[in-house]
Amino acid sequence: MEKIRVAICGYGNVGKGVESEITKAKDMELVAIFTRRNPANLKISSNTKVVSIQEIENWKDKVDVMIMCGGSATDLPKQVPEMAKMFNTVDSFDTHAVIPEHFENVNKSALKNNRTSIISGGWDPGLFSLIRMYSNAIMLDGNTYTFWGRGVSQGHSDAIRRIEGVKNAIQYTIPIEKAVDDVRAGKNPQLSTGEKHLRECFVVVEGGADKNRIENEIKTMPNYFSDYQTTVHFISEEEFKANHNKMSHGGFVIHSGNTGKENNKEIIEFSLKLDSNPEFTASVLIALARAAYKLNKAKQYGAKTIFDIAPSMLSSKSSEELRKELL
Amino acid sequence: MEKIRVAICGYGNVGKGVESEITKAKDMELVAIFTRRNPANLKISSNTKVVSIQEIENWKDKVDVMIMCGGSATDLPKQVPEMAKMFNTVDSFDTHAVIPEHFENVNKSALKNNRTSIISGGWDPGLFSLIRMYSNAIMLDGNTYTFWGRGVSQGHSDAIRRIEGVKNAIQYTIPIEKAVDDVRAGKNPQLSTGEKHLRECFVVVEGGADKNRIENEIKTMPNYFSDYQTTVHFISEEEFKANHNKMSHGGFVIHSGNTGKENNKEIIEFSLKLDSNPEFTASVLIALARAAYKLNKAKQYGAKTIFDIAPSMLSSKSSEELRKELL
Repeated sequence: MEKIRVAICGYGNVGKGVESEITKAKDMELVAIFTRRNPANLKISSNTKVVSIQEIENWKDKVDVMIMCGGSATDLPKQVPEMAKMFNTVDSFDTHAVIPEHFENVNKSALKNNRTSIISGGWDPGLFSLIRMYSNAIMLDGNTYTFWGRGVSQGHSDAIRRIEGVKNAIQYTIPIEKAVDDVRAGKNPQLSTGEKHLRECFVVVEGGADKNRIENEIKTMPNYFSDYQTTVHFISEEEFKANHNKMSHGGFVIHSGNTGKENNKEIIEFSLKLDSNPEFTASVLIALARAAYKLNKAKQYGAKTIFDIAPSMLSSKSSEELRKELL
Repeated sequence: MEKIRVAICGYGNVGKGVESEITKAKDMELVAIFTRRNPANLKISSNTKVVSIQEIENWKDKVDVMIMCGGSATDLPKQVPEMAKMFNTVDSFDTHAVIPEHFENVNKSALKNNRTSIISGGWDPGLFSLIRMYSNAIMLDGNTYTFWGRGVSQGHSDAIRRIEGVKNAIQYTIPIEKAVDDVRAGKNPQLSTGEKHLRECFVVVEGGADKNRIENEIKTMPNYFSDYQTTVHFISEEEFKANHNKMSHGGFVIHSGNTGKENNKEIIEFSLKLDSNPEFTASVLIALARAAYKLNKAKQYGAKTIFDIAPSMLSSKSSEELRKELL
C-alpha cells in the first residue's frame, strides 16, 4: 500500500502532537517538518527531515497533505491561503467570528490550484461543531449549550502575565455545575457565558509585588474577567511548576429538545476530557488529513469543513468494514 | 420553496413519532400514511391521508421519500428492498448482525431503479455508530464501550410475558455504574455485556400464579437473563399502568484513548437521555429523509448509511449558514 505523505508546517505543541500520533496511522508517513526557525537548531522527537519554510515550494510534489500547525491569531489566516496553492491542507483555525472569511480566502486558492483544504478542524471548532450541527438538524425544537473546561485558556493566561509584577500565571476555565445540571435536566435556561463558566487563576508574583493590586487588576479586566466569577490564588514558583504543567482541556455540548404532544425531553450530550489538548487536536487533524487526501483524489477541490465530509472519509477502513464493525 | 414530500410506511410507535415531529420541519410535508390495516379503521393524530399499502405503487411519483417504520425482525428486511424499487427510503433496521445483508439487498434494488436508500438510521445504529466511527478514526490507540439504558428492552419484556402465569411485564436495561465509572476513568477494563448491564423486571402475575417459579424461570432464561444480574419485582396491575408506561431509553458511547509518550488519557463520551425512544428515533429518520432526498437529486443512488453522508446533508440550512452559526 502506498502511504499518504504528510508534512507538518509549524513545530509548536500541535505540531509535536502530529509528530507523535501519526506513527499510529499505518496508512500515513510523516515526510517533513517545516519551520521558520533555523532547521539545524530545532530539537525534534523523531527522525523526520526538518526543512526551512523557505524551501517549501520544492516539496510541492513530495507531500500529499500539509498539516498547518501555526496559531489562529496571525499564522493561519496568512499561511493557509498561500499553502493551499501548492498543497492539500488541514488546519485548526479557531477564531469563530472570522471563519467565513478564512473559508473564502482558502477556497479561492485551493479551487484555482485543484487542491483540497479542510479548515477549522480540531475539537472546537471540529467535533463540538459536528454535535451542534447533527443535534440541530435532528431536534428542531431545542437549545444547544456549549461549556468549555475544566481547561487552560492560553489567552486568559497571557492576559494575566502582562500585568506588572506577575512572574507567571495560568487560568482555568471551569463550567458552573448548577448551569450544567439545569441544562442536563432539560430546563432550557437562558445563560450568558459568564453564567456558564468560572475563571480560576494561579499566579506567581515578583518579590515585593502588591498582591491586592494584582488581584484587583485581574478581576476588573474588561472582556477577560470582569463579567465572570473569578478566583485568584497566589502560589510559589515551585508549586506552579509542579502542579500546573499540563495542557488539559475539555468541555460539553448539550442539546436539550422536546418531542411529541407530551413535550417529552430528549437530551443529547457530548463531552471531552482531555489530558492533552494539543495531542488530541493533532489526532483530529491527522484523521482530517486522510479525508483531504481522499477528497482530492475524488477531485473534490476547494475549502471544506467537517460538515461537508462524509464520516467514512476520516477512517482508513473500507465502507464494508465500517458497516460490519461500527454501525 | 417546494417541500419534500414524505410518506410513512407502517403506523406503529415510530410512525406516530414521524407524524408528530415532521410538523417542525418547514421544508417537508407529510403526504400519506401507508398501512396494512384497513385505512378506515386507523385512528391517526393528523389530517394526513391514510392509504392501504396495496395501493402504494400508485404513489410512485407523489412521494419523494418513504420513511419505513416497520419492525426489524420481519417487516424491514422484506419491505425495504421492495420499496426501494419505487421510492427513496429511510429505515431504522437495527439487527446488527444482519446489516451487511440488508445493505446488499437494498442496494441492489435502489441502484437498479435510481433510488437512494439510507439504512439503519436512528440512535443505535445511527448516532451511536457515528460516535464509534469518528472516535475510532481519530484515536487509533483506544477502546470503545457502548452502554444501553436506563431503558426499556422490548425483546426482554416480550420474553417475560411468554412465561406461564405472567399477565404483564416490562424489563429495564441498566448500565452498571462501576463499569461506567471505570471506563470514564480511562481504566480500559475488559467487560462482557453482562458485566456492563443489569436487568430489572417489573411483573404482574395472574391470580394464584407461583411467583417463585416465575422468578426462577426469568433468572435462568438463557441468552436473555442467565448471564446477567437480574432483579424481579412483582407489582400490581395498577402500579404497572401508573409507573411503567413510558418508552424512555438512552445510553452512552465512551471511547477511551491515549496519546503521546506520557500516555495522556483522552476520553470521548456521547450520551442520550430520551423520554421517548420512538419519537427521538423518528426525529433522526426525518433528518435522514432530507439527506436521502438531496443525495438522490445529486444522483447518488443505492444504499447508504450515516457513515456515507456528509453531515450538512441532514440539515435544511445552507453550508454558509452552518459555517457561520454552528462551526
